[in-house]
Amino acid sequence: MNAPTPVSFYFDFSSPYSYIASEWIEALAARHGRAVKWHAILLGATFQYTGLKPPVDYPLKREYALRDFARSARAEGIPYLQPAQFPIATQNAARVFYWLQSQDPARAASWAHAGLRAYFTRGVRLDDASALKALAEASDIDPQAAEAAWSDPQWKLRLKQANEEAIAAGVFGTPWFVVDGEPFWGNDRKSQIERWLSGDPF
Amino acid sequence: MNAPTPVSFYFDFSSPYSYIASEWIEALAARHGRAVKWHAILLGATFQYTGLKPPVDYPLKREYALRDFARSARAEGIPYLQPAQFPIATQNAARVFYWLQSQDPARAASWAHAGLRAYFTRGVRLDDASALKALAEASDIDPQAAEAAWSDPQWKLRLKQANEEAIAAGVFGTPWFVVDGEPFWGNDRKSQIERWLSGDPF
Repeated sequence: MNAPTPVSFYFDFSSPYSYIASEWIEALAARHGRAVKWHAILLGATFQYTGLKPPVDYPLKREYALRDFARSARAEGIPYLQPAQFPIATQNAARVFYWLQSQDPARAASWAHAGLRAYFTRGVRLDDASALKALAEASDIDPQAAEAAWSDPQWKLRLKQANEEAIAAGVFGTPWFVVDGEPFWGNDRKSQIERWLSGDPF
Repeated sequence: MNAPTPVSFYFDFSSPYSYIASEWIEALAARHGRAVKWHAILLGATFQYTGLKPPVDYPLKREYALRDFARSARAEGIPYLQPAQFPIATQNAARVFYWLQSQDPARAASWAHAGLRAYFTRGVRLDDASALKALAEASDIDPQAAEAAWSDPQWKLRLKQANEEAIAAGVFGTPWFVVDGEPFWGNDRKSQIERWLSGDPF
C-alpha cells in the first residue's frame, strides 16, 4: 500500500499566520497519518502576480491585523511578539531552506521552525546576514555554508521556481495548504482541514 | 442588574460569509445570554474608504473564494447556491432593513434573514425592484411600503450614516462582530467569538 499523500504547506518566513500554522500543522497531519511537505515561498512574488497587497499596507486593516495576529497566537496557546520591523525580506532564509531540503527535508522543516520562532517570538532579523548566520549556528547549521547557499545562483533559482510553482498551483497567500488536491488558505481553516483529513464529508 | 451588552453584527446582503455567519450568530450569542444588534452596511462604502477590493475582483482569489464560500456553508451545514449575478447592489434591501428596525428590531432581523437566504439559496435578485417587493410580500411586509421606504431620503440617509458609523468604528469587511469592545472579522472567527463570550481568557 502506498503511503498517504503528504499535506502541502506553503509559508513565508515573514507571515504571522504562517508561523502560527507551522506550530500545529505537523501534529494535525500526524493525527491522520500524514506527513507535511513544506514549501517556503515569498509572498511578495504572489502579491506581484495577483495584484494583492499585504493587510498591513492598509491603515485600517493594519490595526486589526496586528491585534488578530496576537489573538490568534493566544488562541493556539503559543508565544507571539510582534516584530518591530515588519514585514521583512525573507529570501535568504528561504534559500537556506531549499538548500537544506535538498539534503534532508526534516532539517529544512527544523530550519523553518527555527526561523519563524526566532522572528515571531524574539524579533530576530532574518533579513540581516549576521543575525541569520547566528541563527544557523544555533540550529547546528554551518553559518558559512548557509551564507554560501543563500548567495548561490542554484538556490536563488530554486526559490524562484518554488514561487512560480506556487502561483501556478493557485497560491495567493500564506499559510496555504493542499489536502488531496483541496486548497485551504489561512490559519483559520484549521478546523476545516482537520475535518477534511478525518474523512468527515462536508 | 443591567442586561449584558449585545453582540454587534455588521453584514452586507451581498456577502456570502455574512450569510453564513447570520445563520449561527443568534444561537451563539443566546448560548451566552446575549442579544444580537444587527447593522446592515454596504461593503462598497468601506472598500471605497479603505482602498480594499472584494476578493472576487482578483481572478486567482475569485476561484478560491467561490470554492470556499460553498465549503464554509457546508461546514456549517447550511444550504448555499452561488448566485449567478454576484455581487449585487444591496442598498434597497438595507434601507428596508433600517425602516423596519426603527419600528421593531426583530422584524428587521427577520428581513435580514429573508434577504440573505433568498439571495444565497435561491438567487433572488435583491437589486431588482419587483423581486424585492415580492420578497417583502412573502415576508409579511407591505411591498408598496417597502418600496416607499427604499426611495425615502430618510432611509437613504440612515444607511449612509450606518456606513459612516461602521467605518468610524474600524469596520473594513463583513461579517464583522464586536463583543464587549473586541472586534472580530470573518465567519472564520466563530470559535474565537465563542471563547470570548464564554469568558475563557486567551
